[in-house]
Amino acid sequence: MVPEVPKDHPRYESLITREKLIEGMHQKVVAEAGLIAHGRGEAFDYILGEITPPFALRQEKLAVITLLLAKSPVISVNGNVAALCPKEIVSLSEALGAPLEINLFYRTQERETAIEEALVKAGAKSILGTDPSYQNTITEISHLRRIVDTRGIASSDCVFVPLEDGDRTIALRKLKKEIVTVDLNPISRTSLTSTVSITNNIIRAVVEMVKFANEFKDFNRSDLLEEKKRYNNKDLLQEALQFMSSRLLKLANEKNIFEIF
Amino acid sequence: MVPEVPKDHPRYESLITREKLIEGMHQKVVAEAGLIAHGRGEAFDYILGEITPPFALRQEKLAVITLLLAKSPVISVNGNVAALCPKEIVSLSEALGAPLEINLFYRTQERETAIEEALVKAGAKSILGTDPSYQNTITEISHLRRIVDTRGIASSDCVFVPLEDGDRTIALRKLKKEIVTVDLNPISRTSLTSTVSITNNIIRAVVEMVKFANEFKDFNRSDLLEEKKRYNNKDLLQEALQFMSSRLLKLANEKNIFEIF
Repeated sequence: MVPEVPKDHPRYESLITREKLIEGMHQKVVAEAGLIAHGRGEAFDYILGEITPPFALRQEKLAVITLLLAKSPVISVNGNVAALCPKEIVSLSEALGAPLEINLFYRTQERETAIEEALVKAGAKSILGTDPSYQNTITEISHLRRIVDTRGIASSDCVFVPLEDGDRTIALRKLKKEIVTVDLNPISRTSLTSTVSITNNIIRAVVEMVKFANEFKDFNRSDLLEEKKRYNNKDLLQEALQFMSSRLLKLANEKNIFEIF
Repeated sequence: MVPEVPKDHPRYESLITREKLIEGMHQKVVAEAGLIAHGRGEAFDYILGEITPPFALRQEKLAVITLLLAKSPVISVNGNVAALCPKEIVSLSEALGAPLEINLFYRTQERETAIEEALVKAGAKSILGTDPSYQNTITEISHLRRIVDTRGIASSDCVFVPLEDGDRTIALRKLKKEIVTVDLNPISRTSLTSTVSITNNIIRAVVEMVKFANEFKDFNRSDLLEEKKRYNNKDLLQEALQFMSSRLLKLANEKNIFEIF
Protein backbone atom coordinates (compact mmCIF):
# COMPACT_ATOMS: atom_id res chain seq x y z
CA MET A 1 0.00 0.00 0.00
CA VAL A 2 1.20 3.50 -0.84
CA PRO A 3 1.23 5.78 2.23
CA GLU A 4 -1.04 8.81 1.98
CA VAL A 5 0.49 11.95 0.51
CA PRO A 6 0.31 14.86 2.97
CA LYS A 7 -2.18 17.43 1.59
CA ASP A 8 0.11 20.31 2.49
CA HIS A 9 2.85 19.05 0.18
CA PRO A 10 3.68 21.66 -2.50
CA ARG A 11 4.06 18.97 -5.18
CA TYR A 12 0.74 17.30 -4.21
CA GLU A 13 -0.57 17.06 -7.84
CA SER A 14 2.60 15.47 -9.11
CA LEU A 15 2.64 13.03 -6.17
CA ILE A 16 -0.93 11.98 -6.96
CA THR A 17 0.02 11.15 -10.57
CA ARG A 18 2.92 9.13 -9.19
CA GLU A 19 0.50 7.20 -7.01
CA LYS A 20 -1.58 6.44 -10.10
CA LEU A 21 1.49 4.85 -11.68
CA ILE A 22 2.37 2.94 -8.50
CA GLU A 23 -1.22 1.71 -8.28
CA GLY A 24 -0.87 0.65 -11.94
CA MET A 25 2.20 -1.36 -10.99
CA HIS A 26 0.28 -3.09 -8.19
CA GLN A 27 -2.41 -3.99 -10.74
CA LYS A 28 0.35 -5.36 -13.05
CA VAL A 29 -0.54 -2.78 -15.73
CA VAL A 30 2.71 -0.82 -15.30
CA ALA A 31 6.10 -2.54 -15.45
CA GLU A 32 8.56 -1.73 -12.67
CA ALA A 33 10.89 -0.04 -15.15
CA GLY A 34 7.83 1.97 -16.25
CA LEU A 35 8.01 3.86 -12.95
CA ILE A 36 11.58 4.92 -13.74
CA ALA A 37 10.53 5.97 -17.24
CA HIS A 38 7.75 8.09 -15.74
CA GLY A 39 10.34 9.84 -13.57
CA ARG A 40 12.41 10.74 -16.63
CA GLY A 41 9.29 12.25 -18.17
CA GLU A 42 8.55 14.20 -14.98
CA ALA A 43 11.98 15.85 -15.14
CA PHE A 44 11.62 16.98 -18.77
CA ASP A 45 8.05 18.15 -18.10
CA TYR A 46 9.35 20.18 -15.16
CA ILE A 47 11.77 21.89 -17.56
CA LEU A 48 8.91 22.58 -19.99
CA GLY A 49 7.02 24.24 -17.13
CA GLU A 50 4.33 21.53 -17.05
CA ILE A 51 2.37 23.21 -19.86
CA THR A 52 2.09 22.51 -23.61
CA PRO A 53 4.49 24.88 -25.37
CA PRO A 54 3.65 26.26 -28.87
CA PHE A 55 6.09 23.91 -30.67
CA ALA A 56 4.36 20.88 -29.08
CA LEU A 57 0.99 21.96 -30.47
CA ARG A 58 2.57 22.04 -33.93
CA GLN A 59 4.09 18.57 -33.33
CA GLU A 60 0.65 17.29 -32.33
CA LYS A 61 -0.94 18.76 -35.49
CA LEU A 62 1.72 17.12 -37.66
CA ALA A 63 1.23 13.82 -35.79
CA VAL A 64 -2.54 13.81 -36.28
CA ILE A 65 -2.26 14.74 -39.94
CA THR A 66 0.31 11.96 -40.53
CA LEU A 67 -1.99 9.41 -38.86
CA LEU A 68 -5.06 10.66 -40.77
CA LEU A 69 -3.20 10.39 -44.09
CA ALA A 70 -2.08 6.80 -43.40
CA LYS A 71 -3.79 3.80 -45.03
CA SER A 72 -3.93 1.66 -41.89
CA PRO A 73 -2.81 3.56 -38.79
CA VAL A 74 -2.43 1.65 -35.52
CA ILE A 75 -2.02 2.86 -31.91
CA SER A 76 0.45 0.86 -29.82
CA VAL A 77 -0.39 0.81 -26.11
CA ASN A 78 1.97 -0.07 -23.26
CA GLY A 79 1.51 -0.12 -19.49
CA ASN A 80 2.30 3.52 -18.78
CA VAL A 81 -0.09 4.70 -21.51
CA ALA A 82 -2.84 2.45 -20.12
CA ALA A 83 -2.25 3.78 -16.58
CA LEU A 84 -1.90 7.48 -17.42
CA CYS A 85 -4.58 8.12 -20.07
CA PRO A 86 -6.70 5.02 -20.88
CA LYS A 87 -9.91 6.92 -21.73
CA GLU A 88 -8.06 9.51 -23.79
CA ILE A 89 -6.24 6.88 -25.88
CA VAL A 90 -9.57 5.11 -26.56
CA SER A 91 -11.04 8.47 -27.71
CA LEU A 92 -8.04 9.01 -29.99
CA SER A 93 -8.47 5.52 -31.45
CA GLU A 94 -12.09 6.36 -32.30
CA ALA A 95 -11.31 9.85 -33.65
CA LEU A 96 -8.54 8.51 -35.93
CA GLY A 97 -10.22 5.22 -36.84
CA ALA A 98 -7.00 3.51 -35.71
CA PRO A 99 -7.16 0.25 -33.71
CA LEU A 100 -5.40 -0.18 -30.37
CA GLU A 101 -2.69 -2.84 -30.10
CA ILE A 102 -1.09 -3.92 -26.84
CA ASN A 103 2.64 -4.06 -27.39
CA LEU A 104 4.97 -4.46 -24.44
CA PHE A 105 8.69 -4.09 -23.76
CA TYR A 106 8.37 -6.28 -20.65
CA ARG A 107 5.82 -8.79 -21.94
CA THR A 108 4.03 -11.21 -19.65
CA GLN A 109 0.62 -12.82 -20.02
CA GLU A 110 -0.42 -11.21 -16.73
CA ARG A 111 0.45 -7.69 -17.88
CA GLU A 112 -1.18 -8.19 -21.25
CA THR A 113 -4.42 -9.23 -19.56
CA ALA A 114 -4.26 -6.40 -16.99
CA ILE A 115 -3.77 -3.80 -19.74
CA GLU A 116 -6.55 -5.33 -21.83
CA GLU A 117 -8.90 -5.06 -18.84
CA ALA A 118 -7.88 -1.43 -18.21
CA LEU A 119 -8.59 -0.53 -21.85
CA VAL A 120 -11.95 -2.34 -21.90
CA LYS A 121 -12.88 -0.51 -18.69
CA ALA A 122 -11.95 2.74 -20.44
CA GLY A 123 -14.37 1.94 -23.27
CA ALA A 124 -12.24 0.11 -25.86
CA LYS A 125 -14.38 -2.10 -28.11
CA SER A 126 -11.64 -4.14 -29.74
CA ILE A 127 -7.99 -4.61 -28.89
CA LEU A 128 -5.26 -6.19 -31.01
CA GLY A 129 -2.05 -7.84 -29.83
CA THR A 130 -3.40 -10.46 -27.46
CA ASP A 131 -4.70 -13.25 -29.71
CA PRO A 132 -1.86 -15.79 -30.33
CA SER A 133 -3.35 -16.86 -33.67
CA TYR A 134 -2.58 -13.41 -35.10
CA GLN A 135 0.97 -13.11 -33.74
CA ASN A 136 3.82 -12.28 -36.05
CA THR A 137 7.43 -11.36 -35.24
CA ILE A 138 9.71 -8.52 -36.28
CA THR A 139 13.02 -10.22 -37.03
CA GLU A 140 14.90 -6.91 -36.73
CA ILE A 141 14.72 -6.94 -32.94
CA SER A 142 15.61 -9.48 -30.32
CA HIS A 143 13.57 -10.33 -27.26
CA LEU A 144 9.86 -10.74 -26.66
CA ARG A 145 9.38 -7.16 -27.84
CA ARG A 146 9.38 -8.41 -31.44
CA ILE A 147 5.86 -9.84 -31.28
CA VAL A 148 3.25 -7.88 -33.26
CA ASP A 149 -0.29 -8.48 -34.52
CA THR A 150 -0.73 -9.41 -38.20
CA ARG A 151 -3.93 -7.33 -38.33
CA GLY A 152 -2.21 -4.34 -36.66
CA ILE A 153 1.40 -3.19 -36.45
CA ALA A 154 2.68 -5.98 -38.74
CA SER A 155 0.66 -4.74 -41.71
CA SER A 156 0.31 -1.06 -40.79
CA ASP A 157 1.99 1.75 -42.71
CA CYS A 158 1.91 4.18 -39.77
CA VAL A 159 2.15 3.36 -36.06
CA PHE A 160 1.58 5.70 -33.12
CA VAL A 161 3.92 4.35 -30.42
CA PRO A 162 3.88 6.75 -27.45
CA LEU A 163 6.53 6.22 -24.74
CA GLU A 164 8.41 3.69 -26.86
CA ASP A 165 11.89 2.19 -26.52
CA GLY A 166 14.45 3.38 -29.09
CA ASP A 167 15.42 -0.09 -30.23
CA ARG A 168 11.92 -0.96 -31.28
CA THR A 169 11.24 2.43 -32.85
CA ILE A 170 14.29 1.98 -35.07
CA ALA A 171 13.23 -1.58 -35.98
CA LEU A 172 9.80 -0.32 -37.04
CA ARG A 173 11.36 2.49 -39.08
CA LYS A 174 13.61 -0.04 -40.84
CA LEU A 175 10.43 -1.83 -41.88
CA LYS A 176 9.56 1.43 -43.73
CA LYS A 177 6.66 2.30 -41.45
CA GLU A 178 5.95 5.91 -40.47
CA ILE A 179 6.29 6.29 -36.71
CA VAL A 180 4.55 8.89 -34.55
CA THR A 181 5.58 9.10 -30.90
CA VAL A 182 5.23 11.03 -27.64
CA ASP A 183 8.51 11.30 -25.74
CA LEU A 184 9.42 14.15 -23.40
CA ASN A 185 13.12 13.63 -24.11
CA PRO A 186 13.78 15.38 -27.44
CA ILE A 187 17.12 13.61 -27.86
CA SER A 188 16.02 10.06 -27.08
CA ARG A 189 16.60 7.60 -29.92
CA THR A 190 12.83 7.29 -30.23
CA SER A 191 12.38 11.05 -30.64
CA LEU A 192 15.27 11.36 -33.09
CA THR A 193 14.27 8.47 -35.35
CA SER A 194 10.48 8.83 -35.44
CA THR A 195 8.72 10.41 -38.40
CA VAL A 196 6.87 12.71 -36.00
CA SER A 197 7.87 13.22 -32.36
CA ILE A 198 5.75 15.01 -29.77
CA THR A 199 7.82 16.50 -26.92
CA ASN A 200 5.04 16.80 -24.37
CA ASN A 201 3.41 15.13 -21.39
CA ILE A 202 1.28 12.30 -22.83
CA ILE A 203 -1.72 13.26 -20.67
CA ARG A 204 -1.87 16.72 -22.28
CA ALA A 205 -0.75 15.51 -25.73
CA VAL A 206 -3.44 12.86 -26.27
CA VAL A 207 -6.26 15.20 -25.18
CA GLU A 208 -5.02 17.81 -27.66
CA MET A 209 -4.56 15.19 -30.41
CA VAL A 210 -8.20 14.10 -30.04
CA LYS A 211 -9.28 17.71 -30.61
CA PHE A 212 -7.06 18.03 -33.69
CA ALA A 213 -8.28 14.67 -35.05
CA ASN A 214 -11.91 15.73 -34.76
CA GLU A 215 -11.06 19.08 -36.39
CA PHE A 216 -9.00 17.64 -39.26
CA LYS A 217 -10.78 14.39 -40.09
CA ASP A 218 -13.24 15.94 -42.52
CA PHE A 219 -10.53 17.92 -44.33
CA ASN A 220 -9.62 17.02 -47.91
CA ARG A 221 -6.62 14.79 -48.27
CA SER A 222 -4.89 17.41 -50.42
CA ASP A 223 -5.41 20.06 -47.72
CA LEU A 224 -3.89 17.75 -45.12
CA LEU A 225 -0.91 17.06 -47.38
CA GLU A 226 -0.49 20.80 -47.86
CA GLU A 227 -0.65 21.37 -44.11
CA LYS A 228 1.84 18.54 -43.50
CA LYS A 229 4.41 20.27 -45.74
CA ARG A 230 4.44 23.25 -43.38
CA TYR A 231 6.10 21.23 -40.62
CA ASN A 232 9.36 19.38 -40.26
CA ASN A 233 10.04 16.96 -37.39
CA LYS A 234 13.72 17.84 -37.09
CA ASP A 235 13.02 21.59 -36.91
CA LEU A 236 10.37 21.05 -34.24
CA LEU A 237 12.71 18.89 -32.13
CA GLN A 238 15.39 21.55 -32.40
CA GLU A 239 12.80 24.07 -31.28
CA ALA A 240 11.97 21.81 -28.31
CA LEU A 241 15.65 21.71 -27.29
CA GLN A 242 15.94 25.47 -27.70
CA PHE A 243 12.79 25.99 -25.63
CA MET A 244 14.10 23.79 -22.81
CA SER A 245 17.49 25.49 -23.01
CA SER A 246 15.98 28.96 -22.72
CA ARG A 247 13.69 27.85 -19.86
CA LEU A 248 16.74 26.71 -17.86
CA LEU A 249 18.60 29.92 -18.64
CA LYS A 250 15.59 31.99 -17.62
CA LEU A 251 15.39 30.09 -14.33
CA ALA A 252 19.12 30.68 -13.77
CA ASN A 253 18.53 34.41 -14.03
CA GLU A 254 15.38 34.62 -11.94
CA LYS A 255 16.16 36.83 -8.98
CA ASN A 256 13.61 35.40 -6.59
CA ILE A 257 14.18 31.73 -7.27
CA PHE A 258 16.24 31.31 -4.09
CA GLU A 259 13.73 33.14 -1.88
CA ILE A 260 11.64 30.07 -1.00
CA PHE A 261 11.67 30.51 2.75
CA MET B 1 11.43 -11.05 -11.46
CA VAL B 2 12.99 -8.52 -13.81
CA PRO B 3 13.37 -9.89 -17.36
CA GLU B 4 16.95 -10.00 -18.65
CA VAL B 5 18.13 -6.89 -20.49
CA PRO B 6 19.23 -7.70 -24.05
CA LYS B 7 23.03 -7.27 -24.25
CA ASP B 8 22.77 -5.51 -27.59
CA HIS B 9 20.71 -2.66 -26.12
CA PRO B 10 22.51 0.69 -26.60
CA ARG B 11 21.45 1.85 -23.10
CA TYR B 12 22.59 -1.41 -21.46
CA GLU B 13 24.56 0.33 -18.65
CA SER B 14 21.68 2.56 -17.71
CA LEU B 15 19.27 -0.39 -17.80
CA ILE B 16 21.54 -2.34 -15.43
CA THR B 17 21.49 0.53 -12.88
CA ARG B 18 17.70 0.53 -13.21
CA GLU B 19 17.65 -3.17 -12.43
CA LYS B 20 19.71 -2.48 -9.31
CA LEU B 21 16.98 -0.08 -8.14
CA ILE B 22 14.21 -2.51 -9.03
CA GLU B 23 16.05 -5.27 -7.16
CA GLY B 24 16.32 -2.82 -4.23
CA MET B 25 12.56 -2.39 -4.34
CA HIS B 26 12.05 -6.16 -4.24
CA GLN B 27 14.30 -6.27 -1.17
CA LYS B 28 12.18 -3.46 0.38
CA VAL B 29 15.20 -1.13 0.49
CA VAL B 30 13.84 1.20 -2.21
CA ALA B 31 10.36 2.72 -1.95
CA GLU B 32 8.15 2.47 -5.02
CA ALA B 33 8.22 6.25 -5.44
CA GLY B 34 12.02 5.93 -5.24
CA LEU B 35 11.98 4.36 -8.71
CA ILE B 36 10.22 7.45 -10.08
CA ALA B 37 12.72 9.71 -8.32
CA HIS B 38 15.56 7.74 -9.91
CA GLY B 39 14.02 8.35 -13.33
CA ARG B 40 14.00 12.10 -12.71
CA GLY B 41 17.68 11.90 -11.86
CA GLU B 42 18.38 9.88 -15.03
CA ALA B 43 16.88 12.64 -17.18
CA PHE B 44 18.96 15.42 -15.61
CA ASP B 45 22.09 13.24 -15.75
CA TYR B 46 21.43 12.64 -19.44
CA ILE B 47 21.38 16.42 -19.92
CA LEU B 48 24.70 16.71 -18.02
CA GLY B 49 26.16 14.13 -20.40
CA GLU B 50 26.52 11.49 -17.65
CA ILE B 51 29.86 12.95 -16.49
CA THR B 52 30.82 15.21 -13.57
CA PRO B 53 31.02 18.77 -14.93
CA PRO B 54 33.56 21.26 -13.48
CA PHE B 55 30.93 23.15 -11.43
CA ALA B 56 29.90 19.90 -9.71
CA LEU B 57 33.46 19.26 -8.57
CA ARG B 58 33.42 22.72 -6.96
CA GLN B 59 30.06 21.94 -5.33
CA GLU B 60 31.50 18.70 -3.95
CA LYS B 61 34.54 20.56 -2.55
CA LEU B 62 32.29 23.11 -0.86
CA ALA B 63 30.11 20.29 0.50
CA VAL B 64 33.04 18.38 1.99
CA ILE B 65 34.54 21.52 3.51
CA THR B 66 31.18 22.46 5.08
CA LEU B 67 30.83 18.97 6.58
CA LEU B 68 34.44 18.96 7.85
CA LEU B 69 33.95 22.36 9.51
CA ALA B 70 30.76 21.24 11.31
CA LYS B 71 30.75 20.32 15.01
CA SER B 72 28.61 17.20 14.63
CA PRO B 73 27.93 16.33 10.99
CA VAL B 74 25.47 13.52 10.21
CA ILE B 75 24.75 11.63 6.97
CA SER B 76 21.08 10.88 6.32
CA VAL B 77 20.50 7.69 4.32
CA ASN B 78 17.34 6.74 2.44
CA GLY B 79 16.45 3.74 0.26
CA ASN B 80 17.83 5.02 -3.03
CA VAL B 81 21.15 5.98 -1.43
CA ALA B 82 21.41 2.52 0.18
CA ALA B 83 20.65 0.82 -3.15
CA LEU B 84 22.85 2.97 -5.40
CA CYS B 85 26.05 3.49 -3.37
CA PRO B 86 26.04 1.69 0.03
CA LYS B 87 29.80 1.07 0.21
CA GLU B 88 30.62 4.58 -0.95
CA ILE B 89 28.38 6.22 1.66
CA VAL B 90 29.99 4.09 4.40
CA SER B 91 33.43 5.24 3.15
CA LEU B 92 32.26 8.86 3.26
CA SER B 93 30.96 8.40 6.80
CA GLU B 94 34.39 7.16 7.85
CA ALA B 95 36.33 9.84 5.95
CA LEU B 96 34.20 12.65 7.45
CA GLY B 97 33.78 11.12 10.92
CA ALA B 98 30.02 11.61 10.42
CA PRO B 99 27.57 8.90 11.58
CA LEU B 100 24.96 7.40 9.25
CA GLU B 101 21.27 7.87 10.14
CA ILE B 102 18.43 6.09 8.38
CA ASN B 103 15.75 8.68 7.65
CA LEU B 104 12.86 7.80 5.37
CA PHE B 105 10.11 9.67 3.53
CA TYR B 106 8.07 6.46 3.26
CA ARG B 107 8.87 4.96 6.66
CA THR B 108 8.03 1.36 7.55
CA GLN B 109 9.72 -1.00 9.99
CA GLU B 110 10.39 -3.39 7.11
CA ARG B 111 12.22 -0.78 5.01
CA GLU B 112 14.18 0.50 7.99
CA THR B 113 15.43 -3.03 8.70
CA ALA B 114 16.19 -3.75 5.03
CA ILE B 115 18.24 -0.55 4.71
CA GLU B 116 20.04 -1.26 7.99
CA GLU B 117 20.99 -4.70 6.67
CA ALA B 118 22.21 -3.24 3.35
CA LEU B 119 24.41 -0.74 5.21
CA VAL B 120 25.81 -3.35 7.59
CA LYS B 121 26.61 -5.55 4.58
CA ALA B 122 28.40 -2.56 3.03
CA GLY B 123 30.59 -2.27 6.13
CA ALA B 124 28.74 0.20 8.37
CA LYS B 125 29.73 -0.26 12.03
CA SER B 126 27.00 1.81 13.65
CA ILE B 127 23.75 3.22 12.31
CA LEU B 128 21.46 5.79 13.92
CA GLY B 129 17.74 6.26 13.35
CA THR B 130 16.42 2.81 14.17
CA ASP B 131 16.43 2.64 18.00
CA PRO B 132 13.03 3.86 19.29
CA SER B 133 14.55 4.98 22.61
CA TYR B 134 16.47 7.72 20.79
CA GLN B 135 13.61 8.96 18.60
CA ASN B 136 12.71 12.62 18.56
CA THR B 137 10.33 14.52 16.26
CA ILE B 138 10.68 17.67 14.18
CA THR B 139 7.46 19.57 14.81
CA GLU B 140 7.96 21.66 11.66
CA ILE B 141 6.87 18.82 9.39
CA SER B 142 3.86 16.55 9.32
CA HIS B 143 3.89 12.83 8.66
CA LEU B 144 6.23 10.04 9.74
CA ARG B 145 9.07 11.88 8.03
CA ARG B 146 9.46 14.02 11.15
CA ILE B 147 11.16 11.29 13.22
CA VAL B 148 14.87 11.87 13.86
CA ASP B 149 17.53 10.43 16.18
CA THR B 150 18.45 12.48 19.28
CA ARG B 151 22.11 11.41 18.86
CA GLY B 152 22.10 12.30 15.14
CA ILE B 153 20.05 14.73 13.05
CA ALA B 154 18.16 16.14 16.08
CA SER B 155 21.34 17.50 17.68
CA SER B 156 23.50 17.95 14.56
CA ASP B 157 24.55 21.37 13.23
CA CYS B 158 25.12 20.07 9.68
CA VAL B 159 23.29 17.26 7.88
CA PHE B 160 24.18 15.66 4.55
CA VAL B 161 20.80 14.64 3.10
CA PRO B 162 21.32 13.35 -0.44
CA LEU B 163 18.19 12.79 -2.60
CA GLU B 164 15.96 14.53 -0.05
CA ASP B 165 12.39 15.83 -0.27
CA GLY B 166 12.01 19.62 -0.34
CA ASP B 167 9.59 19.76 2.57
CA ARG B 168 12.00 18.11 4.94
CA THR B 169 15.02 20.06 3.69
CA ILE B 170 13.18 23.30 4.44
CA ALA B 171 12.13 22.03 7.88
CA LEU B 172 15.76 21.20 8.72
CA ARG B 173 16.91 24.61 7.48
CA LYS B 174 14.30 26.31 9.68
CA LEU B 175 15.92 24.52 12.62
CA LYS B 176 19.09 26.49 11.71
CA LYS B 177 21.02 23.44 10.56
CA GLU B 178 23.39 23.61 7.61
CA ILE B 179 22.18 21.26 4.89
CA VAL B 180 24.33 19.61 2.23
CA THR B 181 22.55 17.68 -0.52
CA VAL B 182 22.93 15.83 -3.81
CA ASP B 183 20.08 16.53 -6.22
CA LEU B 184 20.35 16.43 -10.01
CA ASN B 185 17.54 18.96 -10.36
CA PRO B 186 19.15 22.37 -9.74
CA ILE B 187 15.76 24.02 -9.26
CA SER B 188 14.21 21.52 -6.86
CA ARG B 189 13.19 23.01 -3.53
CA THR B 190 15.90 20.88 -1.92
CA SER B 191 18.61 22.27 -4.22
CA LEU B 192 17.42 25.85 -3.83
CA THR B 193 17.15 25.83 -0.04
CA SER B 194 20.19 23.77 0.96
CA THR B 195 23.38 25.40 2.23
CA VAL B 196 25.34 23.41 -0.35
CA SER B 197 23.77 21.57 -3.29
CA ILE B 198 25.59 19.11 -5.51
CA THR B 199 24.07 18.84 -9.00
CA ASN B 200 25.48 15.46 -9.93
CA ASN B 201 24.75 11.74 -10.08
CA ILE B 202 25.09 10.48 -6.48
CA ILE B 203 27.21 7.50 -7.57
CA ARG B 204 29.89 9.80 -9.00
CA ALA B 205 29.42 12.50 -6.34
CA VAL B 206 30.00 10.33 -3.27
CA VAL B 207 33.13 8.71 -4.73
CA GLU B 208 34.54 12.17 -5.45
CA MET B 209 33.52 13.47 -2.00
CA VAL B 210 35.43 10.64 -0.32
CA LYS B 211 38.57 11.69 -2.22
CA PHE B 212 38.09 15.36 -1.22
CA ALA B 213 37.41 14.38 2.40
CA ASN B 214 40.64 12.38 2.61
CA GLU B 215 42.52 15.26 0.96
CA PHE B 216 41.05 18.05 3.13
CA LYS B 217 40.68 16.41 6.52
CA ASP B 218 44.20 17.24 7.69
CA PHE B 219 43.95 20.88 6.54
CA ASN B 220 43.86 23.66 9.15
CA ARG B 221 40.43 24.90 10.05
CA SER B 222 41.41 28.41 8.95
CA ASP B 223 42.51 27.13 5.53
CA LEU B 224 39.19 25.33 5.09
CA LEU B 225 37.29 28.49 6.07
CA GLU B 226 39.37 30.45 3.55
CA GLU B 227 38.64 27.85 0.85
CA LYS B 228 34.92 27.89 1.73
CA LYS B 229 34.76 31.66 1.08
CA ARG B 230 35.77 31.07 -2.54
CA TYR B 231 32.49 29.34 -3.32
CA ASN B 232 28.84 30.36 -3.25
CA ASN B 233 25.98 27.83 -3.51
CA LYS B 234 23.69 30.12 -5.48
CA ASP B 235 26.40 30.93 -8.04
CA LEU B 236 27.20 27.25 -8.51
CA LEU B 237 23.51 26.35 -9.01
CA GLN B 238 23.20 29.10 -11.59
CA GLU B 239 26.26 27.66 -13.28
CA ALA B 240 24.59 24.23 -13.24
CA LEU B 241 21.50 25.65 -14.97
CA GLN B 242 23.65 27.48 -17.50
CA PHE B 243 25.65 24.30 -18.15
CA MET B 244 22.46 22.27 -18.76
CA SER B 245 21.05 25.04 -20.91
CA SER B 246 24.14 25.20 -23.11
CA ARG B 247 24.28 21.39 -23.38
CA LEU B 248 20.71 21.35 -24.76
CA LEU B 249 21.49 24.18 -27.16
CA LYS B 250 24.64 22.40 -28.32
CA LEU B 251 22.59 19.24 -28.94
CA ALA B 252 20.03 21.27 -30.90
CA ASN B 253 22.77 22.46 -33.21
CA GLU B 254 24.56 19.15 -33.68
CA LYS B 255 24.37 18.29 -37.33
CA ASN B 256 24.67 14.54 -36.98
CA ILE B 257 22.24 14.04 -34.13
CA PHE B 258 19.48 12.82 -36.46
CA GLU B 259 21.75 10.42 -38.36
CA ILE B 260 21.18 7.44 -36.06
CA PHE B 261 20.27 4.92 -38.74
